[in-house]
Amino acid sequence: MAYTYKYPKADHTVDAVVFGIDFDETALKILLIERAREPFKGNWALPGGFVEMDEDLEAAVIRELQEETNVRLSYMEQLYTFGAPGRDPRGRVISTAFLGLVQPGHIVIHEGSDAAKAVWWNVNELPGLAFDHAQIIKTGVQRLRSKISWQPVGIELLPDEFTLSDLQQAYEIILGRSIDKRNFRRKVLKFGVLAPTGNVRKENYRPAQLYQFDKKRYALLQKQGIDFEV
Amino acid sequence: MAYTYKYPKADHTVDAVVFGIDFDETALKILLIERAREPFKGNWALPGGFVEMDEDLEAAVIRELQEETNVRLSYMEQLYTFGAPGRDPRGRVISTAFLGLVQPGHIVIHEGSDAAKAVWWNVNELPGLAFDHAQIIKTGVQRLRSKISWQPVGIELLPDEFTLSDLQQAYEIILGRSIDKRNFRRKVLKFGVLAPTGNVRKENYRPAQLYQFDKKRYALLQKQGIDFEV
Repeated sequence: MAYTYKYPKADHTVDAVVFGIDFDETALKILLIERAREPFKGNWALPGGFVEMDEDLEAAVIRELQEETNVRLSYMEQLYTFGAPGRDPRGRVISTAFLGLVQPGHIVIHEGSDAAKAVWWNVNELPGLAFDHAQIIKTGVQRLRSKISWQPVGIELLPDEFTLSDLQQAYEIILGRSIDKRNFRRKVLKFGVLAPTGNVRKENYRPAQLYQFDKKRYALLQKQGIDFEV
Repeated sequence: MAYTYKYPKADHTVDAVVFGIDFDETALKILLIERAREPFKGNWALPGGFVEMDEDLEAAVIRELQEETNVRLSYMEQLYTFGAPGRDPRGRVISTAFLGLVQPGHIVIHEGSDAAKAVWWNVNELPGLAFDHAQIIKTGVQRLRSKISWQPVGIELLPDEFTLSDLQQAYEIILGRSIDKRNFRRKVLKFGVLAPTGNVRKENYRPAQLYQFDKKRYALLQKQGIDFEV
């Protein structure tokens, strides 16, 4: 088959910037795949690929993630479209990047034909990256940091039950700095988005209350926006 | 000339969602053009067009705006990429929309070959629109409303000198609702982003202080973000 057009055309791809929090390693992780083909064969890159003619951009990125990593997202939004000429050695390729979040329980990469080379990397210890993917990841980290200061975000990154220390740690991992405990707790509890589950967990030899998100209130605040500078 | 590819390809366009405040009409205006060609010939649409193979997306939208409207932007950012199959009757067309802001002094559309049919429309009184442009405009209005609550925005929409009433009016026009005067002034002045010019203007028979933006502080707050729920 061949397709003939009067004017030259760019290719359109999607890329997935998928974050998960690794509480054991106290690290923000990002999902990368090792490229099996040229260009940049053997280099690390974001999961992604070409958009089919009959699928939405969102459908394309979900399909590519499924094929390449099998990871299940708990949240996704469009991040930014990268279209500089020369960003891909194969020719003009315009790529729409998506920001995805994954809960710890779903951070495991399932075995699959294409998924063999998918690995979670610490965003602070990234390898050399293909294309302009370092720039795309930087844009993703900035978006995530900015999001948590004006939207509740934890529901997509935390386990179903968690302590206030877990939540604070999630924020500290994303922001890359420590935050004041008392101030954090006061602000978080004020939003009324947390509901005690009645269960406790030992933390530093003391029982710590376990919480879950009040999903209705969470959805409302996500829509309204919050002020959460910590 | 003809261009032949192994796989079918989408076209890539850019669209400009350009807002300006009309203080005389107390209205948020958006720049539209009347389409001279099919599809949607005679309908109103956002300025925009096809991306050239050797130009950035930003360069493409600036070029199209120049050709079609001659309006000078004071601010631009990428808004969102719209890629649903079927959004364009000509075939698969993926469009990256940009949000642009124009100061009142530059709201005049200059005469030019292509610019004859460019008109500022009140966003609350829009005509029927081509393609999915109604949805793109809705996304643009949402972005602008959300932006003004966490970033200083006025510098791109106000004249160089303005009163606090002008600034409040700009916010009210964008939000589409009235806001509390005392609370607004207290918050605005707290940010330290306004500098008195020393000039006054009569407002309701009283002299009102004229201000300009402190550009250094403005740039800092734009980067840091602010909390400005009014």
